[in-house]
Amino acid sequence: MLSDEQYMEIALQQAELAAEQGEVPVGAVLVLAGGQQFSAHNAPILNHDATAHAEIQVIRAACAAIGNYRLVGVQLFVTLEPCTMCAGAIIHARIARVVYGASEPKTGAVESLYQLLSDKRLNHQTELKGGVLADECSAQIKSFFKQRRK
Amino acid sequence: MLSDEQYMEIALQQAELAAEQGEVPVGAVLVLAGGQQFSAHNAPILNHDATAHAEIQVIRAACAAIGNYRLVGVQLFVTLEPCTMCAGAIIHARIARVVYGASEPKTGAVESLYQLLSDKRLNHQTELKGGVLADECSAQIKSFFKQRRK
Repeated sequence: MLSDEQYMEIALQQAELAAEQGEVPVGAVLVLAGGQQFSAHNAPILNHDATAHAEIQVIRAACAAIGNYRLVGVQLFVTLEPCTMCAGAIIHARIARVVYGASEPKTGAVESLYQLLSDKRLNHQTELKGGVLADECSAQIKSFFKQRRK
Repeated sequence: MLSDEQYMEIALQQAELAAEQGEVPVGAVLVLAGGQQFSAHNAPILNHDATAHAEIQVIRAACAAIGNYRLVGVQLFVTLEPCTMCAGAIIHARIARVVYGASEPKTGAVESLYQLLSDKRLNHQTELKGGVLADECSAQIKSFFKQRRK
Protein backbone atom coordinates (compact mmCIF):
# COMPACT_ATOMS: atom_id res chain seq x y z
CA MET A 1 0.00 0.00 0.00
CA LEU A 2 1.05 3.58 -0.64
CA SER A 3 0.70 6.37 1.92
CA ASP A 4 -2.37 8.63 2.02
CA GLU A 5 -0.30 11.40 0.47
CA GLN A 6 0.86 9.16 -2.38
CA TYR A 7 -2.70 8.13 -3.21
CA MET A 8 -3.75 11.77 -3.04
CA GLU A 9 -1.00 12.63 -5.57
CA ILE A 10 -2.63 10.18 -7.99
CA ALA A 11 -6.02 11.76 -7.32
CA LEU A 12 -4.47 15.18 -8.04
CA GLN A 13 -3.16 13.89 -11.38
CA GLN A 14 -6.67 12.72 -12.25
CA ALA A 15 -8.06 16.13 -11.28
CA GLU A 16 -5.52 17.73 -13.62
CA LEU A 17 -6.86 15.58 -16.48
CA ALA A 18 -10.35 16.88 -15.68
CA ALA A 19 -9.13 20.50 -15.82
CA GLU A 20 -7.48 19.91 -19.20
CA GLN A 21 -10.90 18.84 -20.48
CA GLY A 22 -12.67 21.88 -19.05
CA GLU A 23 -14.22 19.98 -16.16
CA VAL A 24 -13.97 21.16 -12.55
CA PRO A 25 -10.76 19.49 -11.36
CA VAL A 26 -11.68 16.78 -8.89
CA GLY A 27 -9.95 13.41 -8.95
CA ALA A 28 -10.46 10.18 -7.02
CA VAL A 29 -8.62 6.94 -6.39
CA LEU A 30 -10.20 3.81 -4.99
CA VAL A 31 -8.03 1.12 -3.45
CA LEU A 32 -9.27 -2.44 -2.89
CA ALA A 33 -8.18 -4.39 0.21
CA GLY A 34 -5.61 -6.25 -1.92
CA GLY A 35 -4.12 -3.01 -3.22
CA GLN A 36 -5.74 -2.92 -6.69
CA GLN A 37 -6.36 0.70 -7.73
CA PHE A 38 -8.97 2.49 -9.78
CA SER A 39 -8.81 6.18 -10.57
CA ALA A 40 -11.19 8.61 -12.25
CA HIS A 41 -12.05 12.27 -12.48
CA ASN A 42 -15.02 14.56 -12.60
CA ALA A 43 -16.63 14.37 -16.06
CA PRO A 44 -20.30 15.49 -16.11
CA ILE A 45 -20.04 17.87 -19.07
CA LEU A 46 -18.17 15.58 -21.45
CA ASN A 47 -20.05 12.45 -20.38
CA HIS A 48 -23.45 14.16 -20.48
CA ASP A 49 -24.08 12.81 -17.00
CA ALA A 50 -25.12 14.92 -14.00
CA THR A 51 -23.95 12.12 -11.71
CA ALA A 52 -20.41 11.82 -13.11
CA HIS A 53 -18.47 13.17 -10.14
CA ALA A 54 -15.02 11.63 -9.61
CA GLU A 55 -16.23 9.50 -6.68
CA ILE A 56 -19.21 8.11 -8.60
CA GLN A 57 -17.04 7.37 -11.63
CA VAL A 58 -14.49 5.44 -9.62
CA ILE A 59 -17.10 3.57 -7.56
CA ARG A 60 -18.88 2.48 -10.73
CA ALA A 61 -15.62 1.41 -12.35
CA ALA A 62 -14.58 -0.67 -9.34
CA CYS A 63 -18.03 -2.26 -8.95
CA ALA A 64 -18.02 -3.22 -12.64
CA ALA A 65 -14.49 -4.62 -12.43
CA ILE A 66 -15.11 -6.83 -9.42
CA GLY A 67 -18.70 -7.67 -10.37
CA ASN A 68 -20.22 -6.58 -7.08
CA TYR A 69 -22.34 -3.64 -5.95
CA ARG A 70 -20.59 -3.61 -2.57
CA LEU A 71 -16.97 -2.53 -2.12
CA VAL A 72 -16.15 -3.97 1.28
CA GLY A 73 -12.81 -3.00 2.89
CA VAL A 74 -12.17 -0.34 0.28
CA GLN A 75 -10.48 3.07 0.69
CA LEU A 76 -11.45 6.12 -1.36
CA PHE A 77 -9.16 9.13 -1.88
CA VAL A 78 -10.63 12.29 -3.36
CA THR A 79 -9.19 15.77 -3.80
CA LEU A 80 -12.35 17.59 -2.62
CA GLU A 81 -14.78 16.97 0.22
CA PRO A 82 -17.64 14.81 -1.16
CA CYS A 83 -21.12 16.25 -1.78
CA THR A 84 -24.40 14.65 -0.60
CA MET A 85 -24.64 12.52 -3.76
CA CYS A 86 -21.15 11.11 -3.41
CA ALA A 87 -21.43 10.63 0.36
CA GLY A 88 -24.59 8.60 -0.29
CA ALA A 89 -22.83 6.48 -2.91
CA ILE A 90 -19.96 5.88 -0.47
CA ILE A 91 -22.47 4.59 2.09
CA HIS A 92 -24.29 2.39 -0.44
CA ALA A 93 -20.98 0.88 -1.59
CA ARG A 94 -20.00 0.22 2.07
CA ILE A 95 -16.64 1.95 1.61
CA ALA A 96 -14.56 1.57 4.80
CA ARG A 97 -12.44 4.71 4.70
CA VAL A 98 -12.57 8.06 2.91
CA VAL A 99 -9.63 10.46 2.70
CA TYR A 100 -10.15 13.87 1.13
CA GLY A 101 -7.99 16.87 0.37
CA ALA A 102 -9.65 20.29 0.37
CA SER A 103 -12.78 21.16 2.34
CA GLU A 104 -15.81 22.36 0.36
CA PRO A 105 -17.72 24.87 2.49
CA LYS A 106 -20.49 25.33 -0.09
CA THR A 107 -21.48 21.71 -0.77
CA GLY A 108 -19.34 19.44 1.42
CA ALA A 109 -21.50 16.77 3.04
CA VAL A 110 -19.06 14.85 5.19
CA GLU A 111 -17.91 17.70 7.46
CA SER A 112 -18.87 21.18 6.19
CA LEU A 113 -22.67 21.26 5.63
CA TYR A 114 -23.55 17.74 6.74
CA GLN A 115 -21.70 14.88 8.41
CA LEU A 116 -23.33 12.07 6.46
CA LEU A 117 -20.57 9.50 6.86
CA SER A 118 -20.93 9.48 10.65
CA ASP A 119 -24.74 9.64 10.82
CA LYS A 120 -25.63 6.72 13.09
CA ARG A 121 -29.18 6.62 11.73
CA LEU A 122 -27.84 5.37 8.40
CA ASN A 123 -26.79 1.74 8.05
CA HIS A 124 -23.08 2.27 7.45
CA GLN A 125 -20.45 4.59 8.89
CA THR A 126 -17.14 5.37 7.27
CA GLU A 127 -13.76 6.25 8.72
CA LEU A 128 -12.93 9.77 7.58
CA LYS A 129 -9.78 11.82 7.24
CA GLY A 130 -9.69 15.30 5.68
CA GLY A 131 -6.95 17.77 4.85
CA VAL A 132 -4.46 15.47 3.08
CA LEU A 133 -2.51 17.68 0.64
CA ALA A 134 -5.26 20.22 1.26
CA ASP A 135 -3.21 23.16 0.00
CA GLU A 136 -2.40 21.49 -3.33
CA CYS A 137 -6.00 20.31 -3.79
CA SER A 138 -7.42 23.71 -2.96
CA ALA A 139 -4.90 25.58 -5.16
CA GLN A 140 -5.75 23.36 -8.13
CA ILE A 141 -9.44 24.23 -7.98
CA LYS A 142 -8.86 27.93 -7.32
CA SER A 143 -6.48 28.10 -10.28
CA PHE A 144 -9.08 26.43 -12.53
CA PHE A 145 -11.79 28.94 -11.68
CA LYS A 146 -9.37 31.89 -11.88
CA GLN A 147 -8.35 30.74 -15.37
CA ARG A 148 -11.98 30.29 -16.41
CA ARG A 149 -12.98 33.79 -15.35
CA LYS A 150 -10.41 35.26 -17.74
CA MET B 1 -48.92 15.69 -19.72
CA LEU B 2 -50.31 12.94 -17.53
CA SER B 3 -51.39 13.47 -13.92
CA ASP B 4 -49.01 12.86 -11.01
CA GLU B 5 -50.91 9.65 -10.25
CA GLN B 6 -50.59 8.42 -13.83
CA TYR B 7 -46.84 8.99 -13.85
CA MET B 8 -46.60 7.26 -10.47
CA GLU B 9 -48.43 4.24 -11.96
CA ILE B 10 -45.65 3.99 -14.56
CA ALA B 11 -43.04 4.25 -11.79
CA LEU B 12 -44.86 1.45 -9.93
CA GLN B 13 -44.68 -0.75 -13.04
CA GLN B 14 -40.93 -0.13 -13.19
CA ALA B 15 -40.62 -1.04 -9.51
CA GLU B 16 -42.45 -4.29 -10.23
CA LEU B 17 -39.85 -5.13 -12.89
CA ALA B 18 -37.15 -4.59 -10.26
CA ALA B 19 -38.90 -6.96 -7.84
CA GLU B 20 -39.15 -9.65 -10.53
CA GLN B 21 -35.36 -9.45 -10.83
CA GLY B 22 -34.77 -9.68 -7.09
CA GLU B 23 -34.00 -5.99 -6.67
CA VAL B 24 -35.68 -3.81 -4.05
CA PRO B 25 -38.74 -2.50 -5.92
CA VAL B 26 -38.22 1.18 -6.57
CA GLY B 27 -39.17 2.74 -9.90
CA ALA B 28 -38.77 6.19 -11.39
CA VAL B 29 -40.09 8.21 -14.32
CA LEU B 30 -38.52 11.39 -15.60
CA VAL B 31 -40.54 13.76 -17.77
CA LEU B 32 -38.94 16.44 -19.94
CA ALA B 33 -40.63 19.82 -20.36
CA GLY B 34 -41.93 18.70 -23.77
CA GLY B 35 -43.47 15.53 -22.33
CA GLN B 36 -40.81 12.99 -23.38
CA GLN B 37 -40.53 10.24 -20.77
CA PHE B 38 -37.76 8.06 -19.42
CA SER B 39 -38.32 5.30 -16.90
CA ALA B 40 -36.01 3.03 -14.95
CA HIS B 41 -35.82 0.91 -11.82
CA ASN B 42 -33.46 0.08 -9.01
CA ALA B 43 -30.76 -2.30 -10.31
CA PRO B 44 -27.58 -2.30 -8.19
CA ILE B 45 -27.25 -6.06 -7.80
CA LEU B 46 -27.74 -7.01 -11.44
CA ASN B 47 -25.80 -4.04 -12.80
CA HIS B 48 -22.94 -4.46 -10.29
CA ASP B 49 -23.30 -0.78 -9.46
CA ALA B 50 -23.76 0.62 -5.96
CA THR B 51 -25.10 3.83 -7.50
CA ALA B 52 -27.82 2.22 -9.63
CA HIS B 53 -30.88 3.48 -7.76
CA ALA B 54 -33.95 4.15 -9.91
CA GLU B 55 -33.44 7.92 -9.80
CA ILE B 56 -29.78 7.73 -10.83
CA GLN B 57 -30.61 5.31 -13.64
CA VAL B 58 -33.30 7.54 -15.09
CA ILE B 59 -31.25 10.74 -14.69
CA ARG B 60 -28.31 9.13 -16.50
CA ALA B 61 -30.58 7.84 -19.28
CA ALA B 62 -32.17 11.23 -19.83
CA CYS B 63 -28.83 13.08 -19.72
CA ALA B 64 -27.40 10.67 -22.31
CA ALA B 65 -30.47 10.98 -24.53
CA ILE B 66 -30.52 14.76 -24.65
CA GLY B 67 -26.72 15.14 -24.55
CA ASN B 68 -26.65 17.45 -21.54
CA TYR B 69 -25.64 17.09 -17.90
CA ARG B 70 -28.41 19.47 -16.83
CA LEU B 71 -32.08 18.54 -16.98
CA VAL B 72 -33.75 21.94 -16.76
CA GLY B 73 -37.54 22.05 -16.35
CA VAL B 74 -37.75 18.34 -15.70
CA GLN B 75 -40.06 16.42 -13.34
CA LEU B 76 -39.03 13.23 -11.56
CA PHE B 77 -41.52 10.70 -10.18
CA VAL B 78 -40.26 7.98 -7.85
CA THR B 79 -42.07 5.38 -5.77
CA LEU B 80 -39.90 5.89 -2.65
CA GLU B 81 -38.52 8.97 -0.93
CA PRO B 82 -35.02 9.62 -2.35
CA CYS B 83 -31.86 8.96 -0.31
CA THR B 84 -28.95 11.40 0.12
CA MET B 85 -27.25 10.12 -3.06
CA CYS B 86 -30.33 10.55 -5.22
CA ALA B 87 -31.26 13.90 -3.68
CA GLY B 88 -27.76 15.11 -4.53
CA ALA B 89 -28.10 13.89 -8.12
CA ILE B 90 -31.46 15.66 -8.40
CA ILE B 91 -29.79 18.90 -7.32
CA HIS B 92 -26.83 18.45 -9.70
CA ALA B 93 -29.21 17.77 -12.61
CA ARG B 94 -31.24 20.90 -11.69
CA ILE B 95 -34.50 18.95 -11.68
CA ALA B 96 -37.43 21.32 -11.15
CA ARG B 97 -39.95 19.08 -9.40
CA VAL B 98 -39.83 15.78 -7.52
CA VAL B 99 -42.91 13.70 -6.72
CA TYR B 100 -42.53 10.62 -4.56
CA GLY B 101 -44.81 7.89 -3.26
CA ALA B 102 -43.90 6.27 0.05
CA SER B 103 -41.86 7.94 2.78
CA GLU B 104 -38.61 6.22 3.81
CA PRO B 105 -38.05 6.86 7.53
CA LYS B 106 -34.68 5.05 7.59
CA THR B 107 -32.87 6.73 4.68
CA GLY B 108 -35.18 9.39 3.22
CA ALA B 109 -33.24 12.59 2.59
CA VAL B 110 -35.89 14.96 1.24
CA GLU B 111 -38.25 14.95 4.25
CA SER B 112 -37.56 12.16 6.75
CA LEU B 113 -33.90 12.37 7.86
CA TYR B 114 -32.81 15.40 5.87
CA GLN B 115 -34.55 18.03 3.75
CA LEU B 116 -31.86 18.34 1.10
CA LEU B 117 -34.07 19.61 -1.71
CA SER B 118 -35.03 22.74 0.24
CA ASP B 119 -31.60 23.48 1.76
CA LYS B 120 -31.03 27.13 0.82
CA ARG B 121 -27.26 26.74 1.31
CA LEU B 122 -27.13 24.53 -1.79
CA ASN B 123 -27.30 26.10 -5.24
CA HIS B 124 -30.61 24.63 -6.37
CA GLN B 125 -33.96 24.01 -4.71
CA THR B 126 -36.60 21.64 -6.00
CA GLU B 127 -40.37 21.68 -5.75
CA LEU B 128 -41.39 18.62 -3.76
CA LYS B 129 -44.57 16.60 -3.36
CA GLY B 130 -44.77 13.37 -1.35
CA GLY B 131 -47.46 10.80 -0.71
CA VAL B 132 -48.72 10.22 -4.28
CA LEU B 133 -50.10 6.65 -4.37
CA ALA B 134 -48.24 6.23 -1.08
CA ASP B 135 -50.25 3.16 -0.03
CA GLU B 136 -49.54 1.27 -3.28
CA CYS B 137 -45.86 2.25 -3.22
CA SER B 138 -45.47 1.25 0.41
CA ALA B 139 -47.38 -2.03 -0.03
CA GLN B 140 -45.16 -3.02 -2.95
CA ILE B 141 -41.98 -2.71 -0.92
CA LYS B 142 -43.44 -4.39 2.17
CA SER B 143 -44.65 -7.28 0.03
CA PHE B 144 -41.17 -7.67 -1.50
CA PHE B 145 -39.43 -7.92 1.87
CA LYS B 146 -42.15 -10.19 3.29
CA GLN B 147 -41.67 -12.53 0.31
CA ARG B 148 -37.92 -12.45 0.69
CA ARG B 149 -38.00 -13.38 4.36
CA LYS B 150 -39.86 -16.60 3.49
